[in-house]
Amino acid sequence: MIIFSERINGMYRDVRKAINERDKQVVQELVREQVAGGADVLDINLGPTRGDAAENFVWLAQTVNEVTDKPISLDSAKPKLLAEAVPKVKQALPDVKLVLNSCTAAPENMEQLIPVAAENGASIIGLTMDREGVPGDVEKRIECGATFLMTAMEMGIEPDDVYIDPIILPVNVASKQPANVMEAIRQLSLVNDPPPHFILGLSNVSQKCLMNHLINRTYLVMAIAAGLDAAIMDAADKELVEAAVSAEVLLDKHLYSDDYIKAWKMQKGL
Amino acid sequence: MIIFSERINGMYRDVRKAINERDKQVVQELVREQVAGGADVLDINLGPTRGDAAENFVWLAQTVNEVTDKPISLDSAKPKLLAEAVPKVKQALPDVKLVLNSCTAAPENMEQLIPVAAENGASIIGLTMDREGVPGDVEKRIECGATFLMTAMEMGIEPDDVYIDPIILPVNVASKQPANVMEAIRQLSLVNDPPPHFILGLSNVSQKCLMNHLINRTYLVMAIAAGLDAAIMDAADKELVEAAVSAEVLLDKHLYSDDYIKAWKMQKGL
Repeated sequence: MIIFSERINGMYRDVRKAINERDKQVVQELVREQVAGGADVLDINLGPTRGDAAENFVWLAQTVNEVTDKPISLDSAKPKLLAEAVPKVKQALPDVKLVLNSCTAAPENMEQLIPVAAENGASIIGLTMDREGVPGDVEKRIECGATFLMTAMEMGIEPDDVYIDPIILPVNVASKQPANVMEAIRQLSLVNDPPPHFILGLSNVSQKCLMNHLINRTYLVMAIAAGLDAAIMDAADKELVEAAVSAEVLLDKHLYSDDYIKAWKMQKGL
Repeated sequence: MIIFSERINGMYRDVRKAINERDKQVVQELVREQVAGGADVLDINLGPTRGDAAENFVWLAQTVNEVTDKPISLDSAKPKLLAEAVPKVKQALPDVKLVLNSCTAAPENMEQLIPVAAENGASIIGLTMDREGVPGDVEKRIECGATFLMTAMEMGIEPDDVYIDPIILPVNVASKQPANVMEAIRQLSLVNDPPPHFILGLSNVSQKCLMNHLINRTYLVMAIAAGLDAAIMDAADKELVEAAVSAEVLLDKHLYSDDYIKAWKMQKGL
């Protein structure tokens, strides 16, 4: 399980304020907490911050990197910003592995962003959507996912650097989508050998739901059984992380031991 | 989700003592607790109790029935005892739906027990094993499950009265079996339309495991996503029941509402 921490996100007021005021301490405290909880990659998202966005990304990435040398995922829905920010962050932090989050399967989007990932040795997250938006069905998700993977491989990116995100929608407004997303993962796992990674922005499934923690960990467990091997999630949610590790033990991906949570942490150096 | 309560079992010392001493109160307190937690069927197992086993079953079933009119599942690995006890309990409690738990897919076992279920209007749990024991692989489980279902239907039992139990083994000694069991359920779901029910003796997956509650609820959620719709489990384990209901909401089997656990309870009259 590759845990992308979701917490360094300007949608949270404390992070937004910290970015605007260049307050390293707030960000770094969160990074420490997420890494201690098991984060493998630090996803950073500016949210609606002020100033030059690419420069904000550089500052935020440097701030994160002062605490951990783990990979950093640059998270934005603006292709132009990612195309500018990824090379700048790479220049500032040449030894850090980057992830470009994200790119759709629309041709113009892939042509713009996949080369940026390739040139900077970055991984890339491909969304299973095109110009027409997020598909409601399984088939279109599979088509977009397969197109993205093939295009990325043609442009020189290894499957291990590709993360397919089948886009989970909130269960309270799109009740059939959680099952569709799992079916898409199950079928896309068969498309390529070795397969790419599969990732979700987990908290989306429980957006504006009252029992969001319970919903998140229930869905994460089910999705892992379907083939999910990465998630953007709150690594500080202990019950969530323990559920994920338990699911992997039950799928024989970690050796069972009486205290397998502790064993998993030790293996990660936590 | 059809919840078979696992607690009225003579393997527990309090229940064994209560059966031997004909102490109704201990049993009935447990039954109330299990029903309040959401049990749909009361599974009763004598364990190593003294005296006439069929008579013990009659007493235990009557004791349960004084508290609830829910179905009662007679649980024993001894075919001869089940063949004797099911008609006796049915005679004592003619209005109570019974479940015969369980019968293997070995021909002599099916010939002995399926007619007993048919004659007493009982459901029957079919184990995916034959004379050679519990299969390690998926294929043999499917073969046994399909054989059992077809034989039961030929003998006049409706698919809705058949529960296939693909036999979960403890994860600490058989690490590949949890995944195999899910795959067997997934494939057996396609065998018949309407399909039978799929059931597991859930606690088995975490036998002698330190984190048994976490393992149970993680596996239950994954198995529900694979098609499980019944489990013999501790209905008084609130977190376990909530995980199961959440899984079903995420699979669009219950309507989402902000407090869907409460809605589920209300629907059950709890």
